[in-house]
Amino acid sequence: MTYSHLSDYPADIRARAARVRLACFDVDGTLTDGRLYFDSNGLELKAFHVQDGQGLVLLRKAGIAVALVTARTSPIAEHRAAELGIEAFTCVADKLSCVRDIATRHGIGMDEVAFMGDDLPDLKVQAEVGLAVAPADAHHWVRERVHWRTVARGGRGAARELCDLLLGAQGHADAALAGTL
Amino acid sequence: MTYSHLSDYPADIRARAARVRLACFDVDGTLTDGRLYFDSNGLELKAFHVQDGQGLVLLRKAGIAVALVTARTSPIAEHRAAELGIEAFTCVADKLSCVRDIATRHGIGMDEVAFMGDDLPDLKVQAEVGLAVAPADAHHWVRERVHWRTVARGGRGAARELCDLLLGAQGHADAALAGTL
Amino acid sequence: MTYSHLSDYPADIRARAARVRLACFDVDGTLTDGRLYFDSNGLELKAFHVQDGQGLVLLRKAGIAVALVTARTSPIAEHRAAELGIEAFTCVADKLSCVRDIATRHGIGMDEVAFMGDDLPDLKVQAEVGLAVAPADAHHWVRERVHWRTVARGGRGAARELCDLLLGAQGHADAALAGTL
Amino acid sequence: MTYSHLSDYPADIRARAARVRLACFDVDGTLTDGRLYFDSNGLELKAFHVQDGQGLVLLRKAGIAVALVTARTSPIAEHRAAELGIEAFTCVADKLSCVRDIATRHGIGMDEVAFMGDDLPDLKVQAEVGLAVAPADAHHWVRERVHWRTVARGGRGAARELCDLLLGAQGHADAALAGTL
Repeated sequence: MTYSHLSDYPADIRARAARVRLACFDVDGTLTDGRLYFDSNGLELKAFHVQDGQGLVLLRKAGIAVALVTARTSPIAEHRAAELGIEAFTCVADKLSCVRDIATRHGIGMDEVAFMGDDLPDLKVQAEVGLAVAPADAHHWVRERVHWRTVARGGRGAARELCDLLLGAQGHADAALAGTL
Repeated sequence: MTYSHLSDYPADIRARAARVRLACFDVDGTLTDGRLYFDSNGLELKAFHVQDGQGLVLLRKAGIAVALVTARTSPIAEHRAAELGIEAFTCVADKLSCVRDIATRHGIGMDEVAFMGDDLPDLKVQAEVGLAVAPADAHHWVRERVHWRTVARGGRGAARELCDLLLGAQGHADAALAGTL
Repeated sequence: MTYSHLSDYPADIRARAARVRLACFDVDGTLTDGRLYFDSNGLELKAFHVQDGQGLVLLRKAGIAVALVTARTSPIAEHRAAELGIEAFTCVADKLSCVRDIATRHGIGMDEVAFMGDDLPDLKVQAEVGLAVAPADAHHWVRERVHWRTVARGGRGAARELCDLLLGAQGHADAALAGTL
Repeated sequence: MTYSHLSDYPADIRARAARVRLACFDVDGTLTDGRLYFDSNGLELKAFHVQDGQGLVLLRKAGIAVALVTARTSPIAEHRAAELGIEAFTCVADKLSCVRDIATRHGIGMDEVAFMGDDLPDLKVQAEVGLAVAPADAHHWVRERVHWRTVARGGRGAARELCDLLLGAQGHADAALAGTL
């Protein structure tokens, strides 16, 4: 792999990233900045970041499975996932068991899974996966318990940082840059 | 209590937090970043933070009563409170009297109440409660008159900081972390 | 006047503030952070800040006339103004002539007017009023041409800073703090 | 030209800016902060910045053609463009070919085109135009490959910075400031 940004990462993180075949993302606080918008009629809104979406699509094109995993009932997360051509698992009470099921279905080991999340319900799955990641503004009890923290905050490019790491570690950065992925 | 983050707080604040049995939160500027969104039809929106909601639920599970107290007519605050399983008091002209009534109803003394707010209408109740807190970006006349200011801004984790302090001071941090609260 | 925060301001600004009987505010970029939200159906949204609203109400209670002046067609600004009990002038092609009319109607001289705005269409009126103010993130051509720039950004407390200055300079800070204004 | 802010820019950038007759802007992440808002019904929202809009109108008045170019289906971008009196090209799979077509139609060479964008799909067109610009928070692979990066972030005045540069380099800054453009 020729693209140089990988030298920014410790060797252990690069090695973990090189093995990832499934990348799972929490939604609120990870793919969003944590804001849950409601209007007077009870309608909910969320804001995803366009650069994160670009990264998730590049992962998918590079052959890495991608899934959103959220505890909230969330037609919005389902809508966004459909738009990006990835899977969404909503209303998930037990994220560890959900991610295990996805991995098993794809024939992927838990050491080949990356999981990114920002709060306590993400800790159990983060303790089991090969690459546990938190956005810069994750809850501090989570930030202290993952393999890697992004520089960017949730909903502001944190997910894209993980995507770029995976693409780089697996030799897809040049193709992504050339638009040939 | 074994969890170490409490050492970040002065002894007086820890002692006040250890006594709290009722935690009340202003809404706009405290549980939100202060933005009041309106659309052309007069519909109002607000954004709550997912990490704050997680903290309020943990307080409730730890047996601490939780209430939202706002001067605005706010079906949105009521909706969010219902979602979190806590009480909401809206259209409140006199916050001190409202909080006194809640405390009396629960048989809780004012020295066992925490109140978090960001602006002048919160000052009177903050002067009476056992633990008066303001978010980092509260109005400066309020910031100077509370027992404790959070590092996080309103709607960006300020309420969660108070929740974590209360959980830690009352010995629930390890259970919260283990997901067994 | 006993409240001390006024010492933060230069004497010239305090003298200008002491004379103000009418305070006019641009809307987008001044009372909002400049974001114009649109949905797929063409509906527009704006976000005002709760602390700014509190300040505008305090000005009104202190007997200072308050008006919103915007070039955009804006039922949202009209709605917010009605909620705060102040006037809104929308679709204003010529802000200077609009502010002059308001001042004349109230029998107020232009040297007794404060105007806060963030962009080029505000410059002409800012050149004529007794106290010209810009939020911290105003366009730099405007920031360089006003009497005073707030520390806070537009829609994030900038208007409240002007309100607090006016209240302080006119001896109303203690009453505002005591809730007796 | 008398207005001094141009001295902030390197001579090469000023020379490139002086030649621009067509300015094209990506939408998400460039004219917005990258947030894609969705509600539970699948409705999408975006937020444009009022100061950016002011700049685009000034460009148009100065005789520089302006166009929005986005890969997303976006009635919102079309609505905003109509409001500003400029063209919008949405659902654009190949931005380079789209910009070439616009330039050809206006009889403008690619060295007379400025393009501002924040992510990988913008790279090919940025490699061909006379002035390639990225907002401060563009993807880092893009930031490293343009002629000039703005100080402001996307949706927070980045586009306005480019507009001001073009207006200054072509001698229109004084007229913009005087409101006579």
